[in-house]
Amino acid sequence: MKDKIKIVGFDADDTLWVNETYYRQTEDLFYELLTGFIDPESCGKKLLELEIKNIELYGFGAKSFVLSMIETAIEVSQGKVPAEIIQRIIDLGKEQILKPVILLDDVQQTLEELKHDYRLIVATKGDLLDQERKLNLSGLAAYFHHIEIMSDKKEKNYLDLLQHLDIKPQEFLMIGNSLKSDILPVLTIGGYAVHIPYHTTWIHELVEDENIDNPKFKTIEKVKDILGLLQ
Amino acid sequence: MKDKIKIVGFDADDTLWVNETYYRQTEDLFYELLTGFIDPESCGKKLLELEIKNIELYGFGAKSFVLSMIETAIEVSQGKVPAEIIQRIIDLGKEQILKPVILLDDVQQTLEELKHDYRLIVATKGDLLDQERKLNLSGLAAYFHHIEIMSDKKEKNYLDLLQHLDIKPQEFLMIGNSLKSDILPVLTIGGYAVHIPYHTTWIHELVEDENIDNPKFKTIEKVKDILGLLQ
Repeated sequence: MKDKIKIVGFDADDTLWVNETYYRQTEDLFYELLTGFIDPESCGKKLLELEIKNIELYGFGAKSFVLSMIETAIEVSQGKVPAEIIQRIIDLGKEQILKPVILLDDVQQTLEELKHDYRLIVATKGDLLDQERKLNLSGLAAYFHHIEIMSDKKEKNYLDLLQHLDIKPQEFLMIGNSLKSDILPVLTIGGYAVHIPYHTTWIHELVEDENIDNPKFKTIEKVKDILGLLQ
Repeated sequence: MKDKIKIVGFDADDTLWVNETYYRQTEDLFYELLTGFIDPESCGKKLLELEIKNIELYGFGAKSFVLSMIETAIEVSQGKVPAEIIQRIIDLGKEQILKPVILLDDVQQTLEELKHDYRLIVATKGDLLDQERKLNLSGLAAYFHHIEIMSDKKEKNYLDLLQHLDIKPQEFLMIGNSLKSDILPVLTIGGYAVHIPYHTTWIHELVEDENIDNPKFKTIEKVKDILGLLQ
């Protein structure tokens, strides 16, 4: 693997720093706001349904999440949710946007070691401003040669990225926590991919078959384990 | 001007295609929804105030706009706005996102002529997914060597862009409808800038002093007038 790779791409949320945990916390507070109308489990199902339905229109990220929570609140209350709860949902969203950026274990040291031998990039989806803010707060920006904030992470998006970076798929390694977004599309186009599972994954990012039989694929437990593969 | 310039950057909204007009239409429908609580003029003032306050957190684009409309509705109704009006605001936002992309006069022909002598790029702020969608719908994507969707358009953002493009400011010309976002920061860093006023400008994009005395600056009426300056 290590002989060919020129550029190593990192996913950001739940690969470099904590993210999904914050979403789950916000969701729990959201379900609480609506306990007068619906139980948490059914509320979560409706929210997920609307989030997925709205992805095409809204894309990923905190603002999309807030808009889907508001729509869920209106729907599950059959239009009876009071404005003060809607305002509380908006405030939950603002609080979520302003959460601190907490790096996962050994991220900085790993980037520090890798930067000598590879060009490092971030390839993340989500909201443009949110991801820029998190990257600035993370203190990691200087490690990266390029930051790509993508509207989605499908084969086509990766092909565009590699064309932009002027490298071949077999010179690219992607590292991330989502099999669906970080691993499978990269393997499909002929790149390398390393999966670092995070303890919490958004249902929409799960794939049915987690068995991947591909010599260009590895699973590791912690980000620093990448050093054993690449050095 | 034409001897030195290598890359010509185009703003997108209200430079390549209609945008602000749609926002105004949505705003008018929004004011109508709230006539039971507040007059349109006062409502518009409150909306603008909240939009500007929320920019730091939300950035630019349709989702930010919808979230600020919802917050405005709650505030001007003192928490009495019914959920069905909130839902209507969400629907207005979805309708706005799906508006057709209408090119301004002679945009395509102008790009067609310029592409032989310059590398053309789009440099736009706004929502990542919205701008990608509009660019795809516009049919113009193939004219552009690079698309930069920026979280803001200040000097720092342009310097980052030029570094990424590997050119000097004096090799860059920016064309756009906003003195604040497309012209002044580019002139400040030493680039060329051409202003094409659009009949409708968001108040937040207006600048107090519109007199710019800089040999690297020109104002034109229509996008095709750029050909007279560059050819």
